[in-house]
Parts: sequence; structure tokens; C-alpha cells
Amino acid sequence: MFELHPRLKQDCIAIGGFPLCRLLLMNDSTYPWFILVPERADIREVHELTDDDQVRLIGESSRLSRWLAEEFEADKINVAALGNMVPQLHWHVIARHVSDPAWPGPVWGKGPPKPYAPEAIDRIRDAAGDALGETFVKRS
Amino acid sequence: MFELHPRLKQDCIAIGGFPLCRLLLMNDSTYPWFILVPERADIREVHELTDDDQVRLIGESSRLSRWLAEEFEADKINVAALGNMVPQLHWHVIARHVSDPAWPGPVWGKGPPKPYAPEAIDRIRDAAGDALGETFVKRS
Repeated sequence: MFELHPRLKQDCIAIGGFPLCRLLLMNDSTYPWFILVPERADIREVHELTDDDQVRLIGESSRLSRWLAEEFEADKINVAALGNMVPQLHWHVIARHVSDPAWPGPVWGKGPPKPYAPEAIDRIRDAAGDALGETFVKRS
Repeated sequence: MFELHPRLKQDCIAIGGFPLCRLLLMNDSTYPWFILVPERADIREVHELTDDDQVRLIGESSRLSRWLAEEFEADKINVAALGNMVPQLHWHVIARHVSDPAWPGPVWGKGPPKPYAPEAIDRIRDAAGDALGETFVKRS
């Protein structure tokens, strides 16, 4: 049975779900920083997913990436599965800007998170629901 | 026409090629740190690849990851496409150990690289050629 890791539950906001992955927003308004979590139990590594699920993951990641690039006028998209701290497989998709405080370095381990205002979260959830296509379901 | 970015040519060692990606080894023996570069011209982002190439990329990444996990007895595999410094799409696959100097942080931007001895490179190239399957071609 899949259950979201408590650390992801604590640090992130639920935005919705693709056929494979739950879509979370990192509660840090410093960057448009999203996390895809495949809803499969006991998976730590991308290569532990079935071939079909790997194809779903890269497809959902790219759908999200295209939207982020447009919606946030990103200079670059960063995608990564690290998992050195939280073992449950989770896939970062981050819209980067040359003006952001971590550029050109990676975002992990930089300054304290700046939590979102509730209205900003609603706005992002609505925009995601409108943009991410028929198989994406918005939820909170 | 695909041409490897000069910065990747400078920092990395050619190991071989999959059907889609060139396989490079970062010339830093601190970590078993490999880079896959899709041999497609003018691509910066994963989502700019065709759907078929995205499937090839995740497949080649997972084949490489499985080998790294075993060969280097990794505690975790990190995969990422950042590209904030080198715009040509390149995909990091890194075998991490709880004992490595960057753990549990990411490896980018840490200490100066420790170049490999030539024998160590030959050993890795031979092991990759033996392990990565029929569609992988070893080269230097």
C-alpha cells in the first residue's frame, strides 16, 4: 500500500495527481518547486519502477516541465531524483531563473523555506488543473 | 549535427555509447559520477526530446543505474538534469555512498575534482563494456 512519506507530507502541499504520480508543491515560494511521487509502495530508485511506470514518470515529468516553463517563464527546468534524505522515490521538477538566489547552483540545502500564502496556493492549484490535461486531477 | 559541448569534453572521459546517449565519466574519482548526453542537436531540456527519445533516455539511465548500484555497491543513485551552467542537455547518474564527502547533500559545486589514474579509467570502461548489454558500445 502506497503512503506518502511523513517528511514529504510535512514539507509539501498537495496539488493533484497524474495516473502514476502524486503532484506536490514544495512549501517554499523562493522557487516554483514541484515534486512528483509515484504512487507505488516500497520504491526508492527510478530503476526499481517497472518499464511502463518509468515511461509514465518521464511523460508526467515532461508534461509538468512544459507547463512550468511557460507558466513561470523559466530560464531552465531542473529535474532530479536524489532521495539521500527521504528514501521514498520522489522526483523534483523545478523552474529556475537566473535571478533566483541559488542560481546557477542547485536549490537543495539553500536558505530557509518561505511558505506560500493560501491564495498563492489556490492560484497554483487552479492553474495546474487548467493546464495539465485530462488525466490530471486537482486535489488538496 | 550533434556535437559534444566543449565543457563536457573538457571535464569528462568518453566511456561509450547507448543507442541514444553518449556515456561520459566525470573526471572526478571522488564519486562514481556518470553523464548521459543524448546525441541530438540543440536540445536543452528533457521535455524537448521526442516522446520516443524520452523513453530511450529513461531506459538507458536505468540500465546504467542498475549497473552502478551493483558495481559500486551504492547506497543511493542520484539522477538529475540541471544544465544551469552547460546548456546542452546532459543527465547525471551518480552512485552515492553515505561515506562520500558530500553526503547527504548533492555533489554539484563541492570541492575540486580528483582526476582518475589512467588504469582506473580503463578498468571502468572494460567493466561498462561487459555489463551494459548488447546495444552499448565501449569507446574512448
